[in-house]
Amino acid sequence: MQREVVRTAAALVIGNELLSGKTLDENLGPLAKALRSLGVRLCRAVVVEDDLETIAHEVSALHRAYDVVFTSGGVGPTHDDVTIDAVARAFATDVVIDAHFAALIRQAYGDSCTESHLRMARVPRGSELITSAEIAWPTVRFANVWVMPGVPEIFRMKLSLLRSRLTGPVTFSSSAVYTCIEESELKPLLDRVVAAHPEVEVGSYPKWRDPTYKTKVTLDATSESAKQAALELLLSLLPPGQLQRIE
Amino acid sequence: MQREVVRTAAALVIGNELLSGKTLDENLGPLAKALRSLGVRLCRAVVVEDDLETIAHEVSALHRAYDVVFTSGGVGPTHDDVTIDAVARAFATDVVIDAHFAALIRQAYGDSCTESHLRMARVPRGSELITSAEIAWPTVRFANVWVMPGVPEIFRMKLSLLRSRLTGPVTFSSSAVYTCIEESELKPLLDRVVAAHPEVEVGSYPKWRDPTYKTKVTLDATSESAKQAALELLLSLLPPGQLQRIE
Repeated sequence: MQREVVRTAAALVIGNELLSGKTLDENLGPLAKALRSLGVRLCRAVVVEDDLETIAHEVSALHRAYDVVFTSGGVGPTHDDVTIDAVARAFATDVVIDAHFAALIRQAYGDSCTESHLRMARVPRGSELITSAEIAWPTVRFANVWVMPGVPEIFRMKLSLLRSRLTGPVTFSSSAVYTCIEESELKPLLDRVVAAHPEVEVGSYPKWRDPTYKTKVTLDATSESAKQAALELLLSLLPPGQLQRIE
Repeated sequence: MQREVVRTAAALVIGNELLSGKTLDENLGPLAKALRSLGVRLCRAVVVEDDLETIAHEVSALHRAYDVVFTSGGVGPTHDDVTIDAVARAFATDVVIDAHFAALIRQAYGDSCTESHLRMARVPRGSELITSAEIAWPTVRFANVWVMPGVPEIFRMKLSLLRSRLTGPVTFSSSAVYTCIEESELKPLLDRVVAAHPEVEVGSYPKWRDPTYKTKVTLDATSESAKQAALELLLSLLPPGQLQRIE
């Protein structure tokens, strides 16, 4: 299957437990990495509570502003799982039981299958159910919105579906330069790199009380040669003995 | 000093490195926990790139919608540190060098102090600079927006300022019940707890392949007795032998 080319992405991370500090989100990092490796720019992430109206509003806004949207969490059989209803609300459609999904659930749970289990087959009407040879359990996609589960192990597993279906228009080329110079002293050097290579994104990250380095400088570009030229300029500007390592 | 009572909060987490998957955010979790312990509800968190217009727009929106806003990151001397300018833009004010802050920087860096160091004293005109006996280095606050640093160790240290200046109107009382029941089978029981105790927030979190439990149920209320009543009902509904532990 031809992969769809998407340029920009947004994430909507759902769950009271994340905002109350009970649970640390573990899904945004792996999603960001996966998208980056595909050449897709993750532009924005929003964390919201388990509130149907809030989620619907956010899905609607992100869906219009970005090429692809991933929701994380709020999928399941219980009262606090409102993501499916919220996505349906965002697209002004209703929620139906998907027959194929329901059959899968009946097969999986056999005689112990209840109405609660079958709630997991509820999808916004008009959804696509994405599966692969490895992942038979469907992932709901409506328009450009992928509805991903909150459980980190399952979320990470499902990133393979995304890799098989989407790709970015570019490849990012990146380097990280670890220096023994304090960020303030590095600034004039960085300003020269930024001015000479406007197509390269230069990041500067001070490290607090690390015995090995003081500031990490990152260089990112969609052209390997542009990134390399900026790297060479930076290295030529660094005073002797101030380079710790390059990654 | 009398602490200011705030009910709702939002977080704005700033940095390309978080959305490109290079760095995992470490600040949202500690902020969420600190606010929770104060009885302040963190309603929303947004992660954005190092873009002045985007940050300004977001600060402006969050400032109007929530009692207090915390930004994380984008504070420092380099070209990618645009949070101070963005906050000034959001409040239609300009950026000035704070004389007291600049004096502190001169004192700290002595003869090696440069223009780059002094850039850290740039603040939106009209800011309050918050310090404490323990933390002499100022934290910028403009209206209800606290500008916090991105470096996790410093961010966490500065949470003590927040504790000394803010408090929530309530105290949250919480319990977590770890059960050996699958979430779908637990649903009818939870529905009864939710129906009987509408003032208690009930959360349900399945655990994937954990040998010790299958579903964690959380109960949260602003009344200890309400939470306790919901807990007792839940425990009475659990089939024998299905309780793993209560926290």
